[in-house]
Amino acid sequence: MSITLSRSAPVDRTERHRLSVVGGLAALSLDAMASVAYGPEAIVIVLAVAGGAGLGFTVPVTLAIALLLGVLTLSYRQVIAAFPDGGGAYGVSRAYLGRRASLVAAASLIVDYVLNVAVSVAAGVAALTSAFPELLPYTIWLCLAVLALVTAVNLRGIAESARVFIAPTVVYVGAILIVVVAGLIRAEPAAAIAAPAQAQHLQTVGILLLLKAFANGCAALTGVEAIANAVPSFRKPRARRAQRAEIALGALLAVMLLGIAALIEKFSIHPVDGVTVLSQVTTAALGDGLGFYVVQFSTVLLLALAANTSFGGLPVLAQLLAKHNNLPHVFALRAERQVFRYGVGFLTITSAILLIVSDGDMNTLVPLFAIGVFVGFTLSQFGMVRHWRKHRPDGWAGKAALNGFGALLTASAAIVVTATKFGEGGWLIVVTLPLLVLIMEWVNRSYDRIGHRLELGRTPTPPRPSRSVVVVPVHTVSRLTRDALAAALSLGDRVEAVHVTHPDEESSTRDFVEAWEKWHPEVRLVQLCDERRRLGEPLVEHLTSVRDQHVFVLIAEVEPERWWQRVLQNQRGAVLARALRRRSGAVICRMRFRLGDH
Amino acid sequence: MSITLSRSAPVDRTERHRLSVVGGLAALSLDAMASVAYGPEAIVIVLAVAGGAGLGFTVPVTLAIALLLGVLTLSYRQVIAAFPDGGGAYGVSRAYLGRRASLVAAASLIVDYVLNVAVSVAAGVAALTSAFPELLPYTIWLCLAVLALVTAVNLRGIAESARVFIAPTVVYVGAILIVVVAGLIRAEPAAAIAAPAQAQHLQTVGILLLLKAFANGCAALTGVEAIANAVPSFRKPRARRAQRAEIALGALLAVMLLGIAALIEKFSIHPVDGVTVLSQVTTAALGDGLGFYVVQFSTVLLLALAANTSFGGLPVLAQLLAKHNNLPHVFALRAERQVFRYGVGFLTITSAILLIVSDGDMNTLVPLFAIGVFVGFTLSQFGMVRHWRKHRPDGWAGKAALNGFGALLTASAAIVVTATKFGEGGWLIVVTLPLLVLIMEWVNRSYDRIGHRLELGRTPTPPRPSRSVVVVPVHTVSRLTRDALAAALSLGDRVEAVHVTHPDEESSTRDFVEAWEKWHPEVRLVQLCDERRRLGEPLVEHLTSVRDQHVFVLIAEVEPERWWQRVLQNQRGAVLARALRRRSGAVICRMRFRLGDH
Repeated sequence: MSITLSRSAPVDRTERHRLSVVGGLAALSLDAMASVAYGPEAIVIVLAVAGGAGLGFTVPVTLAIALLLGVLTLSYRQVIAAFPDGGGAYGVSRAYLGRRASLVAAASLIVDYVLNVAVSVAAGVAALTSAFPELLPYTIWLCLAVLALVTAVNLRGIAESARVFIAPTVVYVGAILIVVVAGLIRAEPAAAIAAPAQAQHLQTVGILLLLKAFANGCAALTGVEAIANAVPSFRKPRARRAQRAEIALGALLAVMLLGIAALIEKFSIHPVDGVTVLSQVTTAALGDGLGFYVVQFSTVLLLALAANTSFGGLPVLAQLLAKHNNLPHVFALRAERQVFRYGVGFLTITSAILLIVSDGDMNTLVPLFAIGVFVGFTLSQFGMVRHWRKHRPDGWAGKAALNGFGALLTASAAIVVTATKFGEGGWLIVVTLPLLVLIMEWVNRSYDRIGHRLELGRTPTPPRPSRSVVVVPVHTVSRLTRDALAAALSLGDRVEAVHVTHPDEESSTRDFVEAWEKWHPEVRLVQLCDERRRLGEPLVEHLTSVRDQHVFVLIAEVEPERWWQRVLQNQRGAVLARALRRRSGAVICRMRFRLGDH
Repeated sequence: MSITLSRSAPVDRTERHRLSVVGGLAALSLDAMASVAYGPEAIVIVLAVAGGAGLGFTVPVTLAIALLLGVLTLSYRQVIAAFPDGGGAYGVSRAYLGRRASLVAAASLIVDYVLNVAVSVAAGVAALTSAFPELLPYTIWLCLAVLALVTAVNLRGIAESARVFIAPTVVYVGAILIVVVAGLIRAEPAAAIAAPAQAQHLQTVGILLLLKAFANGCAALTGVEAIANAVPSFRKPRARRAQRAEIALGALLAVMLLGIAALIEKFSIHPVDGVTVLSQVTTAALGDGLGFYVVQFSTVLLLALAANTSFGGLPVLAQLLAKHNNLPHVFALRAERQVFRYGVGFLTITSAILLIVSDGDMNTLVPLFAIGVFVGFTLSQFGMVRHWRKHRPDGWAGKAALNGFGALLTASAAIVVTATKFGEGGWLIVVTLPLLVLIMEWVNRSYDRIGHRLELGRTPTPPRPSRSVVVVPVHTVSRLTRDALAAALSLGDRVEAVHVTHPDEESSTRDFVEAWEKWHPEVRLVQLCDERRRLGEPLVEHLTSVRDQHVFVLIAEVEPERWWQRVLQNQRGAVLARALRRRSGAVICRMRFRLGDH
């Protein structure tokens, strides 16, 4: 029949809640930025096994990582253009590698978002506790407090949280760049740094060692995909803004990584227990005065805030997965403030579990982190190769080669990391990824079955009216009962009032019947006597005898004027509705009699 | 119109859940029985201030208390006959002393039921921790564990709990009687008992001291009213069984109290820190072997179980108060197992608070206990005097004199206890009683006002049908939508389908409209476009424009086959219903599409 279209007045609150380029960089890239604090150290730790000769390869290895970073950045720039609805590795795999591969990518992304929260929080707190050792006994509580804080900020809406994070990001990036510049200018370390320990059983520099250093250092690349996954969170023009943010991220990250690697070689820095490589670099470049503390403190803050990247990304990914029937639909449900409450909640709970299980120890969590990242990277690179081969724009062969090369690098990194870290928790990821894929396939099949039952996608037969009865439970003769019966009579031709009595309430039953007969409404009254003082069951049993196609039970309740008057409600309606819902097929209609309105 | 009466098959489960004489004694009188453990000690503590001369008055004071007990027992026997619906002090005051007095009585009973739980649990745990001092640091946790246990038993239904308590009661009463008999036969203490401390600053025995001893000892009388309050919990013939239980309680209690008092004088027992008077009596009568431990352990158990008396009494009283509109109606709501869940919950929470605040210390709580008891006793005695004067049966003058004498005794006891214990917590009761009365009066007035609005007690105008519209929110074209529209069409003449869209979902909106037009149901479709992605509010706003008297919103939802499939539900129905309930006057009809049925 007729279709009426009504449009509410346009409100740009939606756009106001979205991200600018700088805001997106702050909200979604903190993870990648913060990895400067542990990436170079991860390389140095491996190379130090081969002593000074090994450490001499810091810059070449970092250069390889920076090259990979460049490849990834350019690749994700293309991904953003090709998939403006977000999705990153998931979206690319879904379009070019098939459903199963896309679920693997989704699973790896989910695992990484969760691990990123746990790792960032743990690393931030670890940096804090190494600066202030007296806080060490409270590590896990500090971790959970930081997590609670980030969750609270994110439940208020992502744009607000982006604004919160811009200043710390600017301070952190500025501080790292000053360290790099000051260090490169300076001829000698500004303050004494620890001397290398006496070398014993030095390994020689081989290809495996370099690969391991490369793989370990790739921890610095986690998070570069976050922007591509969250394109819909940007302001219009969404794709353009997201692309600019992605390029800015790649450039900044490369400069910081290479600069720190150069300083490591220049000042012959080597891993020392209890002092991070970044803090040694800072000491060498700026001394141990105020500048040192500024860098340290902004690092602590940024690592803590890096957890926020996941809160920007995972709920959006989960919504997309829910839209595709791969996750429960509640993940697509937005609360009032444009927030995906269920996604945020899932992230908080799972990362809290990881933090508690690992006792807030970063080193237990980091190895797990890289595996999922590389799986996602590899899938999206391979997907992009397919993309180029399918669409064949100008220069597609070169682009495809670049992506193929990236895929090869990340795939080998994935294999190396999984093999070397399997016993140290890598098995958990190897178990979790297929499990998540199985869960998503179960969810998908269940929705398929439900959709089949609901005949989704087919045109159903037209709706036809049929015989119906409206049953109204009554227990007093009052205005509430009158209004309920009036509503019921307005609905259907057949209305039935039902009164449940108990044998030890004979006098009140007599009073009721007397009042009813005196009132004499034109409605049939059914009296049900229950020996067991039950409320809902007698009605449920009575309804089984009703033969009509549609049975409506109209429950009238008093709605108090003020919230504190709710204590006065008798809960009969709720008890009745619960029993009917569980044990009958009736449509339950609840009518609220507002005391204030009358 | 016609009235149909349907009666479900009689089930005697209700009677099976009720109490026999012995069961009632066990379930409702443990409080009174258990007070043997602290009543005599309360007398001795006061008299010991006057040294040996004071302690010589133990038997006379106990005799006075036993006489009062006799008066109370006979009085409550009459109360049971006069008030077979239960209520005790509350019922009597309500009938003969007016509403305000009855609320004071009810408040005092509520306070006592709560205090009885706290005192019994604390005293039981105190007895346990003095036997096993290593448990002392866990006092409060032991208290809460016992409370949780008793609550759990009571949530299963009172008859079951009565059966649980019969054996411990028999063992305890038997053990006390054996102590009394053995002690009276024996010429010398069976084992050494502590010698009296050197007397200093002895007071002389005066009337005030004796009154104080009497008042303190009256703690032994707490609980004798519990049976009268819970007559409806007995099996038929309820009043006869309750009367027999009351008399049995009075007789047993008197014998135990007098026997122990006689032994206290015989063996010159005096209060000693850390050793209860009852355990000294037991040592003197049975020695310090197995018998001693049996008595001690059954005392511990019984004190803990005495808390159960309140769980038998308070929920029944609360139901009665709710029926009379003095408490929220939920207190009259029985759960499946014939249990008043809200009354049980109230009792558990308030007594847990008392235990936590007092740190599980019995001595902080006991003084508060007696005040409320005596207020209730006094009111019910005075009420009975009025009862006799009104009905004037044979020998009414003697009965009225007995009740009047009892009232005088309990009233003076109330005044003495309040005066002597005001600073030690008595003020709390002096504040709480009027506060409870005020709350109950507020509840009563609120229900009066609600009843007035609902025109309770007046015959309302007959219900008349008026114009109505059934609004069906739709978001797919499917069998669910078809069934919802068919149900709506069966109901009313005017049916309206409403589809809420968001501007960034243009393609899915287009698909929906296409499918709808292809389907072409004979129903008007209203499209609401909301820029802010809200679910419920656009519909609420739309409904404000509907001019019909009755607006029904029919929400169709998929009900999963199995409970774990609930994770797949999208919660749209719940979100919609909440928004409509809060912000519109529409009748909310929720229709469940059961996947299993189709």
